[in-house]
Amino acid sequence: MSTTAKKGTVYLVGAGPGDPELLTLRALRLLETADVILHDDLVPGAIVALANKKATVMSVGKRCGMARITQEGICTLIVDEAQAGKSVVRLKSGDPMVFGRAAEELNALRKAGVEAKVVPGVSAAFAAAAAMQTPMTDRKTASKLILIAGQHAADKASVPPLWIGPIPEDATLAIYMPGRDFATMAHELRRAGVSPDMPVAAVSKAATPEQRVDACRLDGLEHLVAGPAPLLLVVGRAMTPLLEDAENLTAEVKNVLSQI
Amino acid sequence: MSTTAKKGTVYLVGAGPGDPELLTLRALRLLETADVILHDDLVPGAIVALANKKATVMSVGKRCGMARITQEGICTLIVDEAQAGKSVVRLKSGDPMVFGRAAEELNALRKAGVEAKVVPGVSAAFAAAAAMQTPMTDRKTASKLILIAGQHAADKASVPPLWIGPIPEDATLAIYMPGRDFATMAHELRRAGVSPDMPVAAVSKAATPEQRVDACRLDGLEHLVAGPAPLLLVVGRAMTPLLEDAENLTAEVKNVLSQI
Repeated sequence: MSTTAKKGTVYLVGAGPGDPELLTLRALRLLETADVILHDDLVPGAIVALANKKATVMSVGKRCGMARITQEGICTLIVDEAQAGKSVVRLKSGDPMVFGRAAEELNALRKAGVEAKVVPGVSAAFAAAAAMQTPMTDRKTASKLILIAGQHAADKASVPPLWIGPIPEDATLAIYMPGRDFATMAHELRRAGVSPDMPVAAVSKAATPEQRVDACRLDGLEHLVAGPAPLLLVVGRAMTPLLEDAENLTAEVKNVLSQI
Repeated sequence: MSTTAKKGTVYLVGAGPGDPELLTLRALRLLETADVILHDDLVPGAIVALANKKATVMSVGKRCGMARITQEGICTLIVDEAQAGKSVVRLKSGDPMVFGRAAEELNALRKAGVEAKVVPGVSAAFAAAAAMQTPMTDRKTASKLILIAGQHAADKASVPPLWIGPIPEDATLAIYMPGRDFATMAHELRRAGVSPDMPVAAVSKAATPEQRVDACRLDGLEHLVAGPAPLLLVVGRAMTPLLEDAENLTAEVKNVLSQI
């Protein structure tokens, strides 16, 4: 295995869900050999620390990274660095081809005639399923997995609805970036025909030592207290075993308490 | 990073899409240290070869592995090996929690009181997107990614339809194990309201040196010649750039041919 970062090439690399051990071998090799690394805010320090000590490392996140860097600015930056003969890793949390705004960057590279390569990564939904030890599909109850991004734009009026028409009964929904307005989220799901007793799991910081899972039924989502971001909601019958475990535990605790 | 396989524990591990470099660091470490490795047929030899030389390695695939081993047989095997004090890696292609029949194995382990851990992996859809250099979601045309398993049961009559009701216009569908009956597949998609001009990409052997991408519009799917399995179909407006590239190339070739 010998993929080292090539001069003049830009690699769009998935950093996975956060745990450095969930990096792919190729992602690690590229981090260790690239001249320039541009990473999103969500990529944890422990992963960025794996970069070549001689590399130029920049956070291009919009939250706490370079002040007011635009998507256009990132595109210009990766083109310029590659054209200056550098090998560039553009590191995105999870997988780069889902909810990652990769299109803009790939288009800019194509237009400039810069060679681009994409290295897939483990997306958050799969880390969440692993954390819960609960499969997302099941031969009996869930034949589809739907990845969808929640509404997190500042201007709520311009946000399209989560789903138009009915959500299939045999689907598991993994809602990325669900925000904190669980009442609206529950309303949207109900409007899309999801049953009030549908299990919902909220997975906070999956694949980190602080990972936390909370579960409820859809009619209780409004009042669910979930862990800190990054958060993922998983909605579907496939989550029934997880929820039943939680409910049994609650019943047991109540039973014990009633006997005191 | 030091996750070595623990005695008496069973690890459900995602092997990723096929390229050994797309294994996660944790998957590699577990392969290097486990006593027993049980892998699916779809996991390539180059990955199985990374196992500890002293490990007992068994293919439990249903095609060319152990003759007639049932899912129940696999469950018994992993429980027995763990209870005999071995560290066990159950290696599944892609991610173990999607279309992986992980529920049966996790239930058996839970019932037997055997410790289980799940290690997520890169699922085929993400390798396909990387191979095509075409994002699966796009702020304008595709806000959802739907992973769905095609129909590949011997008894066609018992197979449920691919989708009930309309498929959202702004979704990208990644159809795993689509089979070879593209006429029926096209019919199912049309019945679910997918437009006849919707782009379809067929990605064969993604993340291997033999990867091959063919593209058409839905109304041409019936006649599409696609590469060998493992195959993945990707359906959606997000595939428009890929298709337009192919169509431009075809037009160019036709133009050149007409001038000869």
